[in-house]
Amino acid sequence: MAGKRSLMPPGEDALLARLLSKVPVCAGLGPGDDCAAVPGPARGEWLLLKTDAVAEDVHFLRSHDPAQVGWKALCRPLSDIAAMGGTPSEALVTFFSPPGLDASWWVRFYEGLGRAARRFGVTVAGGEMSRQTHGIAVSIALTGRVRRSHLATRSGGKPGDLLVVTGRLGGSPGGRHLTFVPRLEEGRWLARHARPHAMMDLSDGLGSDLPRLAAACGGGFEIDRPRIPRHRGCSIEQALSDGEDYELLLAVTPARWNSLANRWRGVFPNLPLTVIGRLTATPGLPADWPSGWDHFRTPDARGKS
Amino acid sequence: MAGKRSLMPPGEDALLARLLSKVPVCAGLGPGDDCAAVPGPARGEWLLLKTDAVAEDVHFLRSHDPAQVGWKALCRPLSDIAAMGGTPSEALVTFFSPPGLDASWWVRFYEGLGRAARRFGVTVAGGEMSRQTHGIAVSIALTGRVRRSHLATRSGGKPGDLLVVTGRLGGSPGGRHLTFVPRLEEGRWLARHARPHAMMDLSDGLGSDLPRLAAACGGGFEIDRPRIPRHRGCSIEQALSDGEDYELLLAVTPARWNSLANRWRGVFPNLPLTVIGRLTATPGLPADWPSGWDHFRTPDARGKS
Repeated sequence: MAGKRSLMPPGEDALLARLLSKVPVCAGLGPGDDCAAVPGPARGEWLLLKTDAVAEDVHFLRSHDPAQVGWKALCRPLSDIAAMGGTPSEALVTFFSPPGLDASWWVRFYEGLGRAARRFGVTVAGGEMSRQTHGIAVSIALTGRVRRSHLATRSGGKPGDLLVVTGRLGGSPGGRHLTFVPRLEEGRWLARHARPHAMMDLSDGLGSDLPRLAAACGGGFEIDRPRIPRHRGCSIEQALSDGEDYELLLAVTPARWNSLANRWRGVFPNLPLTVIGRLTATPGLPADWPSGWDHFRTPDARGKS
Repeated sequence: MAGKRSLMPPGEDALLARLLSKVPVCAGLGPGDDCAAVPGPARGEWLLLKTDAVAEDVHFLRSHDPAQVGWKALCRPLSDIAAMGGTPSEALVTFFSPPGLDASWWVRFYEGLGRAARRFGVTVAGGEMSRQTHGIAVSIALTGRVRRSHLATRSGGKPGDLLVVTGRLGGSPGGRHLTFVPRLEEGRWLARHARPHAMMDLSDGLGSDLPRLAAACGGGFEIDRPRIPRHRGCSIEQALSDGEDYELLLAVTPARWNSLANRWRGVFPNLPLTVIGRLTATPGLPADWPSGWDHFRTPDARGKS
């Protein structure tokens, strides 16, 4: 383990584990993956359950277009449904509204949310509105469906599996964090055709999320950093640490890679699919691995660009 | 309509209707009832979906025991599952945490949430933690199950149906808003044995909620106010307007009442079941009907006692 930091879970994961020790936990696929999954609604299907949140001055600013905030609020949990290879279905929208906020803010928010809902086949099943004393906050819970044989989790990766990412990373604080497109179609295609051993979405940044995937698989990882696909003008450091990429990270068996890459180019010619490294048997982090983004560790906020 | 105010939806309901016009709405039983309901997970079953929220200085104070806040946060949506005659299953917990709040607050919150989860057969399937700049807020989304033949909605009441409430109303700001017991067992029993034409839970107070039930049924109502069962020391006005009673309100056919009341006493000897009035064919509110509690109309907050 010389030259590696111990694979300590970051603050958020440690707090979550402590909190979950206080409650009865779901018997299906529960906390710790992108979505929870329980049997149903049809035979051979799983029901996916996910909740996500955006808060003012953390994930967006009051000066941002509320329609973009509504888009983002729904697309964040959609990205998690994508990471399970699933198809989204119903949304429950809870919002907290501060004194003096005009109702038109929420109307515009719902316009953006509605645009995302129509595009990705989601219907709104209900919601709850509450006042709070300061700031806007929204939580969206989503259901989804996935065939049991297509369910992609975080934990099945094996040493030697190739680590693959969709799209390009870095630079989301410049605006992409409000306009990104969740990889639903790509996630379903990959679950069916790549049969990944593990898959997750990159919401906190590769620097935070890759160690989570490797830890869930019981091992470590090696990355060839210059191979990380980056948005124009982004450094490797940004690609690792900016967060809010909402691309997919997967672990696939090397034998599948060549045919997979060929078929991918035929179906998604405009979105790169890139090998960036591989899973290893030894838990631990590379020596100079950045921590990525963690709500409960870093004081700087996303969306403050 | 002389002597009646027009049945204008209160501010919260009007805003909700405006927001829902912007989004595709669930094809099953969607927004407007206590829970949404969609087919599944098993044949002849419906999946219930509900989200609810608590915010600091609105539903609780920082000085309250966080374990009681956790209890309340889960029991609020449980009360809605009860109103559908359902059995709860999985919870998704989203929380917003302000700077400087010690993690021990959340540990204690989860202890209370865990106590409610164990008591009512709920498991935690996932969650999300987010920072926000001020104040604590929590949203909990719940799934539940109900046999299709037992599903109780708000909208089936008919003119002449008796209006019936469980328990006693009023006085929740004195502390009961943190410690109430959701009427899950009672709701299931009533759905099976009373076959109510309509049922809902009283979260905003009879003054707000009864007009909603009557409007959903397409009519109005008459109440014999002195018959409203009240907690010790509460006025009729308090019983109508305090809110956060979390009792059940149902509309039952008069022919069922006598046998229903007898069987109820045998099964729930310590909880009153009381006829307070009846549904009528004419929409509208009684002349001096109080508005009850509405987050988006009244500046005073619950829990500030």
